[in-house]
Amino acid sequence: MFTSHQRSTPTQDSVRRQNLGALLRYVHVSGDTSRAELTNQLGLNRSTIGALTADLAGAGLIDEGTPQETGRAGRPSLVVRPRSSRVYGYALSIEVDRLRAARVGLGGKVLDSRELPRPHGTAVRDTVTTLAGFVRDMQRTASPDGVFVGSGIAVSRMMRHADGVVRMLSATVSAVDGVAVAAGTAAAAADVVAGLGARLGAELGAAFGGQLGLDRPPMIGTVADLAALAEHTRGAAAGLDNVVHLHGDAGISAGIIAGGRRVTGQGGHGGEVGHMVVNPQGRECGCGSRGCWETEIARYVSLERGAVRACVDAARLGDPAARAAVRHAADWLGFGVANLVNIFNPTAVVFGGALRELYLAGTAQVRGRLTTALPACREHLRLRTPLLGDDAPLVGAAELAFERLLADPLETAES
Amino acid sequence: MFTSHQRSTPTQDSVRRQNLGALLRYVHVSGDTSRAELTNQLGLNRSTIGALTADLAGAGLIDEGTPQETGRAGRPSLVVRPRSSRVYGYALSIEVDRLRAARVGLGGKVLDSRELPRPHGTAVRDTVTTLAGFVRDMQRTASPDGVFVGSGIAVSRMMRHADGVVRMLSATVSAVDGVAVAAGTAAAAADVVAGLGARLGAELGAAFGGQLGLDRPPMIGTVADLAALAEHTRGAAAGLDNVVHLHGDAGISAGIIAGGRRVTGQGGHGGEVGHMVVNPQGRECGCGSRGCWETEIARYVSLERGAVRACVDAARLGDPAARAAVRHAADWLGFGVANLVNIFNPTAVVFGGALRELYLAGTAQVRGRLTTALPACREHLRLRTPLLGDDAPLVGAAELAFERLLADPLETAES
Repeated sequence: MFTSHQRSTPTQDSVRRQNLGALLRYVHVSGDTSRAELTNQLGLNRSTIGALTADLAGAGLIDEGTPQETGRAGRPSLVVRPRSSRVYGYALSIEVDRLRAARVGLGGKVLDSRELPRPHGTAVRDTVTTLAGFVRDMQRTASPDGVFVGSGIAVSRMMRHADGVVRMLSATVSAVDGVAVAAGTAAAAADVVAGLGARLGAELGAAFGGQLGLDRPPMIGTVADLAALAEHTRGAAAGLDNVVHLHGDAGISAGIIAGGRRVTGQGGHGGEVGHMVVNPQGRECGCGSRGCWETEIARYVSLERGAVRACVDAARLGDPAARAAVRHAADWLGFGVANLVNIFNPTAVVFGGALRELYLAGTAQVRGRLTTALPACREHLRLRTPLLGDDAPLVGAAELAFERLLADPLETAES
Repeated sequence: MFTSHQRSTPTQDSVRRQNLGALLRYVHVSGDTSRAELTNQLGLNRSTIGALTADLAGAGLIDEGTPQETGRAGRPSLVVRPRSSRVYGYALSIEVDRLRAARVGLGGKVLDSRELPRPHGTAVRDTVTTLAGFVRDMQRTASPDGVFVGSGIAVSRMMRHADGVVRMLSATVSAVDGVAVAAGTAAAAADVVAGLGARLGAELGAAFGGQLGLDRPPMIGTVADLAALAEHTRGAAAGLDNVVHLHGDAGISAGIIAGGRRVTGQGGHGGEVGHMVVNPQGRECGCGSRGCWETEIARYVSLERGAVRACVDAARLGDPAARAAVRHAADWLGFGVANLVNIFNPTAVVFGGALRELYLAGTAQVRGRLTTALPACREHLRLRTPLLGDDAPLVGAAELAFERLLADPLETAES
C-alpha cells in the first residue's frame, strides 16, 4: 500500500492525476458522456470537471462535440468524447489455432485488425514475426499525429501447456527457437512469455527506430484472464464485482474478478480450475492427475469448440448418444461450477469459449447441479454467456494496453 | 473506483489523509519506528514525516520517545510509538464453544480480555448479554481520557450452520430469540448476524448513554476471514499477498487474501472450501451434497480440535488404526489443498484451527498430494502454521475495529 506514495511533498498532483484518470476511464468505458453525467458519476463539482476536461482535451485525449442522434427533441448538450481515431494501442492475441492483432482506439473502438491461422507447433520466432508484421502493416494507416499508448498480448495457456512452446508437465527439456527450456517449471513458461514480449518489442523497435514507443514490451495476460477483464469492463459482467469467467479451450481456465480486481495469484498462474480434481476414480488427465474437472467433462464432449458444436447439433437433431453426452458433460460442468460458487460466492459465472454452447445446451443440468452449492453462496448468482464473443481476449488485451494511460493520462500521452 | 472522490474541489486533504493513514498503519503494524525508517518505508521526505507525526501526536494517537533497549551502543534516536494504552477498540469473538472479548490498543496490544464457555444452542439474546457484559466490565478500567475507535466481531460460520441460530440447510423455519428465521437463506443468516451487531450496539449504547460511540454497531467478519486477516497483518502470512488460510473447526472454511486484499465474495459468504466436492462416490455431507472435502477428511479424523489431537497423540504412541487414520485424513487434506493451489496460485497456505495438528502430523502426505498441483501454480508455495494460535480471530476482529481509524486518523480520533 505504500507504493502509491510519491517521494516528494504531497501536492495536488496525485489527486489531479487520479481525477484525470477517473474521468478518462469513464469516457473510455461509457463512450460519449455529457458534463452533467460526469459531474454526477464522478462526484466532482462542475468547475473541476471543466478543468479536467480542458486538460484532457489539451493533451489530445478527448474532445467535445454534439452527441450521436438521440431522437430526443431540443438542442442536445455537448458531450465529452474519447478521441478514438487519434489515441490508440495494439491488442494482440496468440491463440491455439490463430494469431490476431487489432489497432484499438481509446474508447475500445477497433480501428483495424489482422488475423492468420497458427499451425500447430509454430515456433516463438515465427509467432513474433507474424505479430510484428501485423503491427507494422496497421501502423502504416495510422494517422501521423496519432498517439500510441501501449500494447497488450493475450496468451493462451494451452499454448504453453500443450503445443510445443512449453510443455509444463513433461519431464523433457526441449530447445525452442534456440532457447533451452527446462520444461516443468513455471519460470520457464514465464521466461518464454516474457521473452516473447521483449522480442516483439525489439522487432518493432528496430522497424520503427524506437519511434512512438513501439519498442516498449507489451503487457501480457492469459486469454482467460483477459477475456474476464474484457467482459468485466464492457461485456456480460460489466458493473459486477465478483465474477468467475470460465474459458473453455481444450481445457478450462478461469479469469477471476473479486471485489472488482483481477485475482491471478502470485505468479499469474491462478485460475487453473480445469485441474481441480473432482473425481478420484476418474480418468487420467494430461497433467498427471486423475479426475480433473476438465477431463471428466471431456469424457463426454471434447472441449474443442468444433467438437462441442458438433455434439450439440447432433443432440438437437435427436441423436440419443449425443443427447446423453451433452447431458453428462453439462452435469459435470455444473458440478465444478458449484464448487467454485462455494469458494467465491460470485455475482456471476460467465461461460466462455467452448463452454458457451455446452452451457446453453445443458442449462438445466448446470442449474440442477448448482442447487448443491450452499444457499448463501449461490444467492443472487447470475449465469451468463459472454457478450464479446471471440473478441473478448483481444478486447482485454486492449484494456491492458490502455492501463498506463488511464492511470496517469497526461504523463503517458506526452511521453 | 469512483467512491474515493470527494464531492468538492480536489485539495491536499485526501493526500494528507492517505499519508496520515499510511504512517499510522505502519506504526500500528510494526510497532516503535524511527523517523528515518518511516521516511524510508513510506517514500515521503523528512519534513512531510515530521508534519504528519506532529498531526498524529496532536490527536493523541502516537507519541515519540526512547525505544526499547536495543543493545546497541550510542544514544538511541527517538522512535514513533502507537499510544496503545490510550487508543483502543473492542474485539469480540463468538465461537462454537466460547465467547471471547478483548480491549485492544492501537498497535495490537491486548490491554484486557474476558472469556466464557458458550453452551451449545445459546440464544442470540444471551450471547449479546454476555458480550455486552464483557465490554461494560472492561470499559470500567479504561483510562477516562481513552479514545474508543470501534469494535469488530468474529462470528464462527459453524454457529450459523450448525448449532441452532440459523440452520442454513434445513427446510424448517425456527423461531430464535423471538425472531422467526426462514432457514435455508443467506439473507436470514445475514439478518441474524447484522441483528446481533445492532443489538450489541444498542445494549452498550443504553449502558453508556451513547457516550464514546459504544453504540456504533461493530464490524463483522467470519472466524476464518478474520484469522486470515490477522495472520496476514501480523502473523504467519505477514508480507505475503496471496494467501489461502484454512480454518478447521468442525468443517473447513478459508480466509483468502489475493493481491493483498480479502476475497470474501459478493455477500461475504465465499471461502466455503470445505464444501468443494472432491469425491462423487463419497459420504453424504450435512450440506446435502456427497463427498465434500471436509466430509472426506472427517471419515478418518473428525475435524474437532480435541478429536484431531487425540488421534494424532494415539498415532504418535504407535496405535496402528490412529496412524492409518492420520495418514488417510492428511492425504485428503493435501488433495483439496492441491485444488486450491491450482485455483489461487498462492504464496502461502496456512493450516489453522483443527487443521494445524493434522497438517503437522501428516506433512508428508500433504506434500505428497501437492505434487499433483500444476508446477506453475505451486512454485514458491510455502506451507505454514498460524503464529497467532487461538487468538487469530480476536486479533483479526481488532484489525476490523481499527480499520476506520487507519483510513482517516484525525477525523475518527476526533469524532
